[in-house]
Amino acid sequence: MAAQPKNVGILAVEIYFPPTCLQQEALEAHDGASKGKYTIGLGQDCMGFCTEVEDVISMSLTAVTSLLEKYAIDPKQIGRLEVGSETVIDKSKSIKTFLMQIFEKSGNTDIEGVDSTNACYGGTAALFNCVNWVESSSWDGRYGLVVCTDSAVYAEGAARPTGGAAAIAMLVGPDAPIVFESKIRASHMAHVYDFYKPILDSEYPVVDGKLSQTCYLMALDSCYKSLCNKYEKLEGKQFSIDDAAYFVFHSPYNKLVQKSTARLMFNDFTRNASSIDESTKEKLAPFSSLTGDESYQSRDLEKTSWQVAKPFYDEKVKPATLIPKQVGNMYTASLYAAFASLLHNKHSSLAGQRVVLFSYGSGLTATMFSLKLHEGQHPFNLSNIATVMNIEEKLKSRHEFTPENFIETMKIMEHRYGGKDFVTSKDCSLLAPGTYYLTEVDSKYRRFYAKKCAENGLANGH
Amino acid sequence: MAAQPKNVGILAVEIYFPPTCLQQEALEAHDGASKGKYTIGLGQDCMGFCTEVEDVISMSLTAVTSLLEKYAIDPKQIGRLEVGSETVIDKSKSIKTFLMQIFEKSGNTDIEGVDSTNACYGGTAALFNCVNWVESSSWDGRYGLVVCTDSAVYAEGAARPTGGAAAIAMLVGPDAPIVFESKIRASHMAHVYDFYKPILDSEYPVVDGKLSQTCYLMALDSCYKSLCNKYEKLEGKQFSIDDAAYFVFHSPYNKLVQKSTARLMFNDFTRNASSIDESTKEKLAPFSSLTGDESYQSRDLEKTSWQVAKPFYDEKVKPATLIPKQVGNMYTASLYAAFASLLHNKHSSLAGQRVVLFSYGSGLTATMFSLKLHEGQHPFNLSNIATVMNIEEKLKSRHEFTPENFIETMKIMEHRYGGKDFVTSKDCSLLAPGTYYLTEVDSKYRRFYAKKCAENGLANGH
Repeated sequence: MAAQPKNVGILAVEIYFPPTCLQQEALEAHDGASKGKYTIGLGQDCMGFCTEVEDVISMSLTAVTSLLEKYAIDPKQIGRLEVGSETVIDKSKSIKTFLMQIFEKSGNTDIEGVDSTNACYGGTAALFNCVNWVESSSWDGRYGLVVCTDSAVYAEGAARPTGGAAAIAMLVGPDAPIVFESKIRASHMAHVYDFYKPILDSEYPVVDGKLSQTCYLMALDSCYKSLCNKYEKLEGKQFSIDDAAYFVFHSPYNKLVQKSTARLMFNDFTRNASSIDESTKEKLAPFSSLTGDESYQSRDLEKTSWQVAKPFYDEKVKPATLIPKQVGNMYTASLYAAFASLLHNKHSSLAGQRVVLFSYGSGLTATMFSLKLHEGQHPFNLSNIATVMNIEEKLKSRHEFTPENFIETMKIMEHRYGGKDFVTSKDCSLLAPGTYYLTEVDSKYRRFYAKKCAENGLANGH
Repeated sequence: MAAQPKNVGILAVEIYFPPTCLQQEALEAHDGASKGKYTIGLGQDCMGFCTEVEDVISMSLTAVTSLLEKYAIDPKQIGRLEVGSETVIDKSKSIKTFLMQIFEKSGNTDIEGVDSTNACYGGTAALFNCVNWVESSSWDGRYGLVVCTDSAVYAEGAARPTGGAAAIAMLVGPDAPIVFESKIRASHMAHVYDFYKPILDSEYPVVDGKLSQTCYLMALDSCYKSLCNKYEKLEGKQFSIDDAAYFVFHSPYNKLVQKSTARLMFNDFTRNASSIDESTKEKLAPFSSLTGDESYQSRDLEKTSWQVAKPFYDEKVKPATLIPKQVGNMYTASLYAAFASLLHNKHSSLAGQRVVLFSYGSGLTATMFSLKLHEGQHPFNLSNIATVMNIEEKLKSRHEFTPENFIETMKIMEHRYGGKDFVTSKDCSLLAPGTYYLTEVDSKYRRFYAKKCAENGLANGH
């Protein structure tokens, strides 16, 4: 059978986000919000969203077919396929089974894996499962494929500007340029109601924004402390923020990433880590006696720690913020879109570096984990991954909607959510060639998709 | 770190099903169905169901706490916990996070895993993930825990007698009495609409019963053929039904298990396997020229193959049908409740035997896989597992509802599905000590549970 796999991790990445977006500045003005409330207050530039011809299934079909094509992977070479998503279109039938259409054509139906679900964390669970599969005795030598796909939409109000949409596909196997350091990993999982979706016939979640932010930061602290402890046991020396070249965060909105960066620095301060210089120590000293709870509430600490953490953010965090700031919260895809931003910005220079990622899903499930990067071999190398993803071009070629058009789109989507017996406009004029789109939901709720051809006309729907 | 794990599999099992049930004979009479329609036509004896104080969360809390107690497992020893379910109470927050309440109390929040979803297959996905984790480099030496929990309910009509409800918890680790033969495993996954849940505000599925049965049998054929091929490549000899001591099937209703048994035998016949004697060959010969499609539709083949397969069913399949016939379809828990029936009926005599399981989830995802059993070491041994599960006593101490009371219960559940701001009757008089039950869903859809104490009175709710 297959040789014992080494350096298991991510071989290839493709990302898809809708070509339709809305400037946060325009939404701010439309909403009558104070200037900078969304752009500085939330730290967001732009928000991507699905129109009535796209959804999480079409986006994932697009991402998977594009990945297979661009890296020249035969569909028969895939032995496991799993999906992370919290956008529920059907409560029983997995998104993975929709993706099987791609593989059935080539006669490959022997592909393990289903959907993993817990808020924005499902993609991380799927990724870990896939890596574990390659390392297990049940691995059959083929590639694994992980897809994160979500459409984040909110009811009108304070949370609406924190939407977004994307699908990301990641190929998993041995001898990867992006290797999991599987022992440097820590989770924090607990029962809370910070963000959840109990209203079954609505796409919109129930959110306690303040609680969710505190839960995120508490989970971050817990994971970081635990990861540091594990590292010290393993390596016999202290871990600090100096021990990773970059940090990548799940990004509901950029301001929380800034706060998280400051929080990591505060953690290093309280742990008396070598990463904290004398001047920083002095600035943070007044906060050393705060209890945990107090520290999450203190605006002074937030301000001061951000001030000292800003250079750290600019160097080690900001390169991973491009897509999340430009597309918004992509739920399960958010963390990996942030990581894709880093690959886009730094590509080959990441070789030899450690990158630490923090995945958070409300409810709650959180893990901090470490990746070690290598240049890799074509086509599975850092520079090719950056080329294939073609992020700059994808961002540049988007179409800006006005707030009015955006709201109109949201109304159509609200109306159709959970519905049946309708055809869409089938208008794919804004979509890039190769993009899948929804054409119809029939009287039995069955969904039909078509693919926009490279030239003109349409491929057959499924 | 932990030593390289060997013989990874299931160490311990606990099953919970509601103490409330309905005789299929009584439902037949009430429905005005012809005598034997449910009992012989479907092959079902009795149907378990949740009343308004139980749901998939309460059942899984009960199964997990009971397993930890009865096998004396410290909650800190659990490093991974994952859930398979298709009963959606929240579209974002996983059932796993509810179960974290049990572990948070002991200070253990570093527990990976979320929920796996695709119809009745989610539990199998979770189980494979958990086994892979133990075999992977990310294993930290602790136990994994897999929970399958579902409540299967149907709208009034033909499908209603195929309901059921249960939760099953399985402890996973090395040196197990129930070991995965991970190379003897084959999947069939495809995009179909045989059973699905697109009506988001209803607990009831959309079902095409005839299509679903054909999909099940086609997936069975595909998996069996592929498993035989893999076995022959691996072992250099043919696989036939003689090579396993028992076969365990996902059981929507017993009649489909009978048909599956006959189908396996027909497969061996078409493959010219050594398991088929001359007399059987003669009886099946008239059907040898049927196409695949014809063979699924032929009533004559069904009748004849069942006739020849009956002794095979009685010996190798029937011992795994007790709970599915008595409790009904338990969705993700169904296959493992069937396997639990086998452990209950055959316990220590299973040592040294191979058992082949077939997992099916509509949509569709299916896997056939092999387990090798050993007596094991106390408390993780076959006879103790059978003792702990105490299935006979659990079945015997159930309370029978009349069809009228059952329908009344279903109406309350329909009304409350997806609802908020209600308290339940909190009537736990029918529940066994140690059982969790739902007390309230507040105005923010938050759910509260309590535990019926061993003596009297209640434990604190969560």
